[in-house]
Amino acid sequence: MEGRVRFIDQTRLPDAEVYEETDDYRVVCEAIRRLQIRGAPAIGVAAAFGLLLAVSEQGVDDRATLIRRFDTAFDALSATRPTAVNLFAALARMRQAMGISDALSVDAIRAQLTAEALAIQQEDIEACRLIGQYGGRLIPPGSTLLTHCNTGALATAGSGTALSIIVTAARQGKAIRVYVDETRPLFQGARLTSWELKREGIEAVLITDSTAGLLMQRQHIHAVVVGADRIAANGDVANKVGTYPLAVLASRHGIPFYVAAPTSTIDLRTPTGLDIPIEERDPAEVTHAAGVRVAPPGVSAFAPAFDITPNDLISAIVTEVGVLRAPFGNSIAEARRQPALAIRENTQ
Amino acid sequence: MEGRVRFIDQTRLPDAEVYEETDDYRVVCEAIRRLQIRGAPAIGVAAAFGLLLAVSEQGVDDRATLIRRFDTAFDALSATRPTAVNLFAALARMRQAMGISDALSVDAIRAQLTAEALAIQQEDIEACRLIGQYGGRLIPPGSTLLTHCNTGALATAGSGTALSIIVTAARQGKAIRVYVDETRPLFQGARLTSWELKREGIEAVLITDSTAGLLMQRQHIHAVVVGADRIAANGDVANKVGTYPLAVLASRHGIPFYVAAPTSTIDLRTPTGLDIPIEERDPAEVTHAAGVRVAPPGVSAFAPAFDITPNDLISAIVTEVGVLRAPFGNSIAEARRQPALAIRENTQ
Repeated sequence: MEGRVRFIDQTRLPDAEVYEETDDYRVVCEAIRRLQIRGAPAIGVAAAFGLLLAVSEQGVDDRATLIRRFDTAFDALSATRPTAVNLFAALARMRQAMGISDALSVDAIRAQLTAEALAIQQEDIEACRLIGQYGGRLIPPGSTLLTHCNTGALATAGSGTALSIIVTAARQGKAIRVYVDETRPLFQGARLTSWELKREGIEAVLITDSTAGLLMQRQHIHAVVVGADRIAANGDVANKVGTYPLAVLASRHGIPFYVAAPTSTIDLRTPTGLDIPIEERDPAEVTHAAGVRVAPPGVSAFAPAFDITPNDLISAIVTEVGVLRAPFGNSIAEARRQPALAIRENTQ
Repeated sequence: MEGRVRFIDQTRLPDAEVYEETDDYRVVCEAIRRLQIRGAPAIGVAAAFGLLLAVSEQGVDDRATLIRRFDTAFDALSATRPTAVNLFAALARMRQAMGISDALSVDAIRAQLTAEALAIQQEDIEACRLIGQYGGRLIPPGSTLLTHCNTGALATAGSGTALSIIVTAARQGKAIRVYVDETRPLFQGARLTSWELKREGIEAVLITDSTAGLLMQRQHIHAVVVGADRIAANGDVANKVGTYPLAVLASRHGIPFYVAAPTSTIDLRTPTGLDIPIEERDPAEVTHAAGVRVAPPGVSAFAPAFDITPNDLISAIVTEVGVLRAPFGNSIAEARRQPALAIRENTQ
């Protein structure tokens, strides 16, 4: 850590691997807002380290200043993106870690916050590994999978969520083939997922987002594997816009539809998908493609970042504590009740 | 006509309105292949005039030469695109119009072919108008519609198919609002449909192709209206890739799903959608967007131009002879049996 946060600028991939380094939490905020840092788990980890930067700034010499800086950064980071709950979960953990005892010195509080940020990061790395292990078992040898958006190492602190399942299955020698949705408007599939799969040596075929229907008609897809930005208490899933149509198609064709996410993506305070706020982004993301205007000037556009997949379309939710099945209200409550580390040992 | 074919280059829209003019049928072939001319009915009309150019070339002074040129052009035009049946229907009509009597002079044959090409064009103009009239009645006032790809004046010789319905309903003062699928990979919705709707003064909102699910979840769509590239004898419809997912979503949400096409798009020799050949286009259309590479070099892509919507997902097929309903096997056979002009009078 050493007082700085280093991240790859995802907006520049795959053309350039540009790393940014900053000691300013405002740069982290902007990076999250501009999707230089994206992916629900990665946003959570970045937010934790952002808070750490704020309380490590020059002039934070007393407890009152530290709390003020913390609160300001907390609010700024909270306001970056509304849907991914990992952001709010990480911020809440950091606030709890700050402690309330007047007895603690500024250095002691900083040490606690550092430990918590590192713990959030480490737990995400471990969660990714375990999601890969649990999910890999669901994938039969020779499977052709379909995935949407990007859920790999870029989107997390570890090996990814949905992509961790795909990579784990491939490393088990299962001869995996992947159709990659390009994921308009920002092409996270075309730019990031195909780049990550290529590096892993996994066969990938890029398609437009609306090609999945034809592939399923032709029985070319054996399972759909996607990530999540927030999972409601009843198992409804917010994920990148276009996920819901895939789930509806998979259901019609009897194809398993798997959602992969750490339990930090579950929000028990959100009863159903209807309660999840959906971020609307700049219409220019739709009127333009790859920086080029495609629509005539003056045409309006609607650019929601996410949609909601109702729980009845989901075959299983793969978490670091195991594979959750319907009824999701029960399995999710159970997963969140269990001490995560105790459960984890089962996968060893 | 006067020995030349003039067409707008649709690949340059909306940035530039460039008209091409040619007396060479090979230029017409290339224009169809490169989608400078596109839209099933427009392709049919262009093919008819392409044949006319071939038999009007210098050196066509005797019947044998004319037939040779005709056959060469016929084969070249047939090979441009495999899915839209209007192409083959128009070519077949022109062959029939050429006649078989040895008694006819070269000039007489040319006159017959000219009359037939003009008839194909005029019938398409009239079909578009009637589709608008029949279909407009299906659209309640205040409707928000969803459409895919481009089905307007650009895609036909007349006012369009699905877009003719939308424009007719709007002109009836029904306060129509339209969500326009951008239609990856070539953005026919973003570039062409939004351009045409803007010129008509109809409120249009551009979305990515995978946003329809969210809009239907939120009950923002009252009907889906699309065109067709080929309709099988049982009512299965081949249309721009992405149509099938829309139909599946519409069915789940109880939203009417209307297909608009002239009866020349119906192919009675294609029993079901499974029998329709689906054109696969250059993978570069998917690895690139608006001319810019988005995927890393070396990533493969799959670029089908169409998908198949099974008849059970279709609420009605709107043709120039009326609105066809399930069972489509019967209503289609009936529509094709009737003398088109007699039926047309009903709409006056």
